[in-house]
Amino acid sequence: MKFLHTSDWHLGRQFHNVSLLEDQRAVLEQIIAYLQENTIDALVIAGDIYDRSVPPTAAIDLMNEFVSRVCGELHVPIILISGNHDGAQRLGFGSEQMKPSGLHILTSFNAMLSPVIIQSDIGEVAFYGMPYNDPEQVRHHYQVAVSSHDEAHQYLAEQIEQTFDSNRNNVLISHCFVDGAMESDSERPLSIGGSDRVNHEHFAGFDYVALGHLHQPQKKGQEYIRYSGSLMKYSFSEQHQKKGMTLVELDQQGFCSATHIDLKAPHEMRIVEGLLEDVIANGKVDPNNHDYVLVRLLDKHAILDPMEKLRHAYPNVLHLEKPGMLIGVDQEMGKARLARGELDMFKDFFLEAKQEPLTTEQEEAMSRIINQLTHRDEADA
Amino acid sequence: MKFLHTSDWHLGRQFHNVSLLEDQRAVLEQIIAYLQENTIDALVIAGDIYDRSVPPTAAIDLMNEFVSRVCGELHVPIILISGNHDGAQRLGFGSEQMKPSGLHILTSFNAMLSPVIIQSDIGEVAFYGMPYNDPEQVRHHYQVAVSSHDEAHQYLAEQIEQTFDSNRNNVLISHCFVDGAMESDSERPLSIGGSDRVNHEHFAGFDYVALGHLHQPQKKGQEYIRYSGSLMKYSFSEQHQKKGMTLVELDQQGFCSATHIDLKAPHEMRIVEGLLEDVIANGKVDPNNHDYVLVRLLDKHAILDPMEKLRHAYPNVLHLEKPGMLIGVDQEMGKARLARGELDMFKDFFLEAKQEPLTTEQEEAMSRIINQLTHRDEADA
Repeated sequence: MKFLHTSDWHLGRQFHNVSLLEDQRAVLEQIIAYLQENTIDALVIAGDIYDRSVPPTAAIDLMNEFVSRVCGELHVPIILISGNHDGAQRLGFGSEQMKPSGLHILTSFNAMLSPVIIQSDIGEVAFYGMPYNDPEQVRHHYQVAVSSHDEAHQYLAEQIEQTFDSNRNNVLISHCFVDGAMESDSERPLSIGGSDRVNHEHFAGFDYVALGHLHQPQKKGQEYIRYSGSLMKYSFSEQHQKKGMTLVELDQQGFCSATHIDLKAPHEMRIVEGLLEDVIANGKVDPNNHDYVLVRLLDKHAILDPMEKLRHAYPNVLHLEKPGMLIGVDQEMGKARLARGELDMFKDFFLEAKQEPLTTEQEEAMSRIINQLTHRDEADA
Repeated sequence: MKFLHTSDWHLGRQFHNVSLLEDQRAVLEQIIAYLQENTIDALVIAGDIYDRSVPPTAAIDLMNEFVSRVCGELHVPIILISGNHDGAQRLGFGSEQMKPSGLHILTSFNAMLSPVIIQSDIGEVAFYGMPYNDPEQVRHHYQVAVSSHDEAHQYLAEQIEQTFDSNRNNVLISHCFVDGAMESDSERPLSIGGSDRVNHEHFAGFDYVALGHLHQPQKKGQEYIRYSGSLMKYSFSEQHQKKGMTLVELDQQGFCSATHIDLKAPHEMRIVEGLLEDVIANGKVDPNNHDYVLVRLLDKHAILDPMEKLRHAYPNVLHLEKPGMLIGVDQEMGKARLARGELDMFKDFFLEAKQEPLTTEQEEAMSRIINQLTHRDEADA
């Protein structure tokens, strides 16, 4: 029995005002190609299908096309749950009517307790989808006193285990923050101060646990409790993460192996660091200079319109940091002050803007103005 | 062969800031009861399922429950198209996957040309769903030069007729403004100045045409080209309309009969007219005083907080008109002026607020103030 575990697609996401939809489309094509070339019993998506509860229609179209090809043409069942970014009710409309076609959208506690049964070479495997939930929802639905994500997930896992059939292997799909796992910048916190953490031991009774929410592929506590990680990188903090999906092979005894399958977005997301001149020189010969880059400039002088200059080398530079400009903050003054004086900054600017230095006369005039402004500033403070 | 033709459900609509969802739920229960008690081959909804492209989740839940009961439990197929209020792409997600369950959501031109085939006692009947469209969409999709709704719908009808199978009867479902039909206040205009009108003759080749968009049940040109009207009243202008659904019986020769089946919302929508005192007296003994009412007060004097007073008699009074207060507009002055002078208005107000008349002294003081203000006003003009 083989299935693919993926999560955190975030279709329709914008990144620094750039739509990632065409990158997402390209990665989905890789999943389809894999399904065409391999015999796979099911595709699992562990939540955050869309980036928000009311996704852009272009993202809905992309997902619609994907499910039509995978369920309709390849006849591979898709089993997905809603994540904290999804609108469970919007995503779940018509889900009862979709089941006969092999599209299983599990967005409610009722749906959670009716496992999707997949026939395979090891017999029936039951897939239980636990949609994203917070303790309040569990309290309200079951009228039980659970006060944390941990207690809520423990309670839900117990509810599911009561429906186990001993002739089946059991897979759980859940979207939550399992304790001790590694975070990335692109995940939206489920709650503040660590109260969102869930102990992996609640899930120990399943044969495999397909987790979503965290964007870094990783296992938690056991080999068979895993995050597949997100479809692609969604923040520069993920620049060194390997993105992809997890191929899970399950045998009748409940032993499983998990293999990472790479997925590669057309544009990498990475950080480029150096002096402006060097970054531009490197970019011009960089074969991957169309990547989405964050440039961290180490120059210590002011630069006029650096983004415009960088775009000649890296057309998709999305963000700029200039840590060098902030070195030497004057803490004794009780306020941030740039290391270079105002006059030096203006001289840099003038040189960039006019392509010639200040004359002595201009420099003296500027110096007087800055002095006047500085003194007035301090009198105000 | 019998099917029900309905349209313009507008689930999730607000009316004067009141949610109509519970009224809508009650009317949907009447449809379900009818389907339980009668043998019906299909239920048609000719567009405007929801009131807006991103409907409230409570409306989605209501619709989801309805389709699960009708398709899932009663096994009656539902065939629906998107109207101008619906978001076609949002509504259409997963529609390919829903078809095997008997839920046919037709929201694209491609879906329009694949009729839903219903087996019946007269053989196969083909239901073609023409989703709401404007000429721009038709121009773009088919690359043809159509410049009006009329030309666009003629073109689409021709496309459909080319797919006709002579062994079948053919039903068209369309959401448009067929020429000469009667409007209500609650329809959103499709375009300005009558360019949205479509000639009914384009649809003459079908055996029945199930129209949506106009809220008044009516036929157009032929007995078999009909609007079912909206699920319930959505404006006070519809107070005298009979709301319901159309039961269509079709024989093999293509003859059809259409019968109006009443649907009754728990709250009627109606206009109550009279003097405040009379309206309140009548309301207190009105067995239907929980209806949604617009009160048109004929009193000619000012009344303090009339809504509050009316609510004791009509708890769901939603709107108030006081045409009597505007009689005698002074047109020679070039500005609207109330028939009653300011002093008289203030005397009405004072009596209402304090339950006692002005003293002579108070009246003189008020008169002086009004005079001053009036003269200043005229000096400014």
